[in-house]
Amino acid sequence: MNSEKIILGVDPGTTIMGFGLIKVVGQKMQFMQLNELQLHKYDDHYLKLKLIFERTIELIDTYHPDEMAIEAPFFGKNVQSMLKLGRAQGVAMAAGLSRQVPVTEYSPRKIKLAITGNGNSSKEQVAKMLQSLLALKSLPKNLDSTDGLAAAVCHFYNSGGIQSDKKYSGWSAFVKKNPDKIG
Amino acid sequence: MNSEKIILGVDPGTTIMGFGLIKVVGQKMQFMQLNELQLHKYDDHYLKLKLIFERTIELIDTYHPDEMAIEAPFFGKNVQSMLKLGRAQGVAMAAGLSRQVPVTEYSPRKIKLAITGNGNSSKEQVAKMLQSLLALKSLPKNLDSTDGLAAAVCHFYNSGGIQSDKKYSGWSAFVKKNPDKIG
Repeated sequence: MNSEKIILGVDPGTTIMGFGLIKVVGQKMQFMQLNELQLHKYDDHYLKLKLIFERTIELIDTYHPDEMAIEAPFFGKNVQSMLKLGRAQGVAMAAGLSRQVPVTEYSPRKIKLAITGNGNSSKEQVAKMLQSLLALKSLPKNLDSTDGLAAAVCHFYNSGGIQSDKKYSGWSAFVKKNPDKIG
Repeated sequence: MNSEKIILGVDPGTTIMGFGLIKVVGQKMQFMQLNELQLHKYDDHYLKLKLIFERTIELIDTYHPDEMAIEAPFFGKNVQSMLKLGRAQGVAMAAGLSRQVPVTEYSPRKIKLAITGNGNSSKEQVAKMLQSLLALKSLPKNLDSTDGLAAAVCHFYNSGGIQSDKKYSGWSAFVKKNPDKIG
């Protein structure tokens, strides 16, 4: 195992793509970046796919991540929305494939479980835990944009970057320290 | 309009990817290639996506198509299969995006309509019409593999490669000449 690696996390959707980067040094995570690509202002579905692909390529070429994690929901309301979501996931995965970056996908439930210890936790709970784990000064207005970063952190917990008995201790420790911050 | 161009047609699915290439010289189509990538023997969905992406890139880098057409169904049985299909379409589209090849998608109905004049025609009818239009010596055993070539031919008809009043004349002329070949 490398003693240092960079993980890119993305959550490719059709209205927003959240993405984040962490550096793993030994057993510790360091925050690198958290941002979003707004897609809701574009009507053209194909343009959205192009933007997701190009931004993901740009992130890979800029930060040279060793691994990539994708938040990938498996369930949806209808076949039309799932086809669009599948395409968005597909182009993001292809960006990783085209640059030989290994891609691992995680369900939203698995990501929540890894970060808060509860697969049904709220977006606010996940965001606050991320803030605590990575010492973020602030959280973005739109919490959807934290989903990419959450995928990266989930991948860190699932790829042997931390001792397994500490895996889910973060959230309960956080609750004890910050009872007033729980949404 | 270029007097000569190459069109790559692909039908990315999760069990097979059919693909075909035609050269358009002036107002005429010339057959270049028809083949399939078998995916049903692989269990790993992610490996399938990788193979679709890599084969599409390989086709682009080998034949340098000017344009790319994708058969893209919009309806399916359930959300799970549509997510998988969307991913397959997404990685194929991303291959075009990564090589700056314009991609146009066509529904199965539109492809059938363009080739046979009937949006509800059978796979056999489409294949036999392709055989006639492109002077193919034989058809592949698995007619699914002709779907990519059909997408390329559909794109030819829809991108001004032929006079519009002749657009849907092919099938009715074929029926008159080959009444015994209609399945």
